[in-house]
Amino acid sequence: MNEREIIARLRRIATDPAARGLADDAALLDGLVITHDTIAEGIHFLPFDPPASVGWKLVAVNLSDLAAKGAAARAVLLSMTIGDPDWDEAFIDGLEAACESYSVALIGGDTIALPARAPRVLGLTAIGRAGKRTPSRSGGRPGDALWLVGTLGDSAAGLKQLLADPKAAGPLVDHYRRPVPLLAAGPALARRASAMMDVSDGLLLDLARLCEASGCGAEIDLGALPLSQAFIAERGEGRTARLFAATGGDDYALLAALPAGLDPLSLSLPSQARVTPIGRLVERNGIALTHDGEPVELPETMGYEHHRP
Amino acid sequence: MNEREIIARLRRIATDPAARGLADDAALLDGLVITHDTIAEGIHFLPFDPPASVGWKLVAVNLSDLAAKGAAARAVLLSMTIGDPDWDEAFIDGLEAACESYSVALIGGDTIALPARAPRVLGLTAIGRAGKRTPSRSGGRPGDALWLVGTLGDSAAGLKQLLADPKAAGPLVDHYRRPVPLLAAGPALARRASAMMDVSDGLLLDLARLCEASGCGAEIDLGALPLSQAFIAERGEGRTARLFAATGGDDYALLAALPAGLDPLSLSLPSQARVTPIGRLVERNGIALTHDGEPVELPETMGYEHHRP
Repeated sequence: MNEREIIARLRRIATDPAARGLADDAALLDGLVITHDTIAEGIHFLPFDPPASVGWKLVAVNLSDLAAKGAAARAVLLSMTIGDPDWDEAFIDGLEAACESYSVALIGGDTIALPARAPRVLGLTAIGRAGKRTPSRSGGRPGDALWLVGTLGDSAAGLKQLLADPKAAGPLVDHYRRPVPLLAAGPALARRASAMMDVSDGLLLDLARLCEASGCGAEIDLGALPLSQAFIAERGEGRTARLFAATGGDDYALLAALPAGLDPLSLSLPSQARVTPIGRLVERNGIALTHDGEPVELPETMGYEHHRP
Repeated sequence: MNEREIIARLRRIATDPAARGLADDAALLDGLVITHDTIAEGIHFLPFDPPASVGWKLVAVNLSDLAAKGAAARAVLLSMTIGDPDWDEAFIDGLEAACESYSVALIGGDTIALPARAPRVLGLTAIGRAGKRTPSRSGGRPGDALWLVGTLGDSAAGLKQLLADPKAAGPLVDHYRRPVPLLAAGPALARRASAMMDVSDGLLLDLARLCEASGCGAEIDLGALPLSQAFIAERGEGRTARLFAATGGDDYALLAALPAGLDPLSLSLPSQARVTPIGRLVERNGIALTHDGEPVELPETMGYEHHRP
């Protein structure tokens, strides 16, 4: 079984309504939104990434899932492999900094030792209080406008810089190592979003999941994708750069389907949020890309799918 | 930092009341008891353990933590490393069997790939609804009687059999591979227990933790420890066997401090539960062991502490 088949198998078990069919990034139980993400050395972070940034990122990626469900982050449980005292202490420093920044409490977890030279595996369960509405991935309807909060590609560009030069630094590397969960924007959008999720594995792959769950397709204008100045300076803003940004992943931007005509500025989003219309949902299945008014073929790789290298 | 120092560091972060000072096996948030245990290949299970038994055990050990807090098990989130289709499918079969047996819903989680030849790491977050009382480890008082539900040493004896012969089978191996969480006894004891926990790392080590959290000591009669017929047949019931049983771990028995004079039979425990008085809490710090009325020196290893081999 590959990841897709395993998830299909798990879905057949997960029949409880709280599971939301495992079609979402989070469960909803007794008014709490609950999510769990695990990150592994060599897969989700680099062996030479500063351990404090790994601790930060573990918290941030989980809080991003809560943001995408419009929840108020409340608490986390940590699962931590231990072995290298200096690394472990700095990792906890970063985890603590993120918990303090976002006012979430560490309330439990587990520590285990791994055999020497095994990759570190770090898990976090994050718990938030649900808002009045908890949008799923599956509520999107043809005609909804697709909005993105945040920018795309920064993190993937930062990772490329690091793979070329482990000493690379700058805003793109920062975005890769210390993503910022959009905890204020999420609840604001959740009040009206038909469907919402965070972009963690690449916009096109995650959008395909939203479309599949919602039973519809989407049209995306590559030219509309929000790119940062740092990204443009590094990789340009041509079609290749935009396809890279649309498939790179690790963005932790929010993707929301909103009723057509709704102006997100009416939703009290935080003033610093960059909110961009990028396309719309349509009846016809599949994702149709355009750029400068021309159709663009979908890339072979839509994003990051986990598989054994 | 070793595991103890890391937990001390994490405790300094975990100041929220829901964390219960990380002195417990579970957090208590909004009426839900929440716990997370991770198991790793080569540490918590053997590479040749049947994958279905690993799936079962992952659920059982987490539900045991809920039982020890008197909670009614409700749901789990799974964190799963994937790679070997046959192994993964059988693992999920075992997980499903345990979820069905104990009526808990799979409601979320994460799947990740690990690099080839890395040990499998499998995590589970378990969530239960709290009962009227949620006993902690810290409420024990000098004079309380110590009761144990279940037996000790079976699992450790089964592991010894497997390490000597990977084809070993029988009730001890079954206990190691398919522990049974005491989900009916837990809530019954929780109504009156001053302190309660499950015995997962060895009775003496876990009791020392209960005593530390409660600010007292304990006296234990080795001769009173409940041993199964299968255990006695394999290892005898002399002092060596009893010290082995008291330190082996993986028991998933329940250890409860009850007010002196309270008869646990008054608590509507399930009829098949084996309930044994094993000692009492005392003012003086530390654990005092006796056997046949004689003092017995504490073993050097009180149980299983995680450390990199």
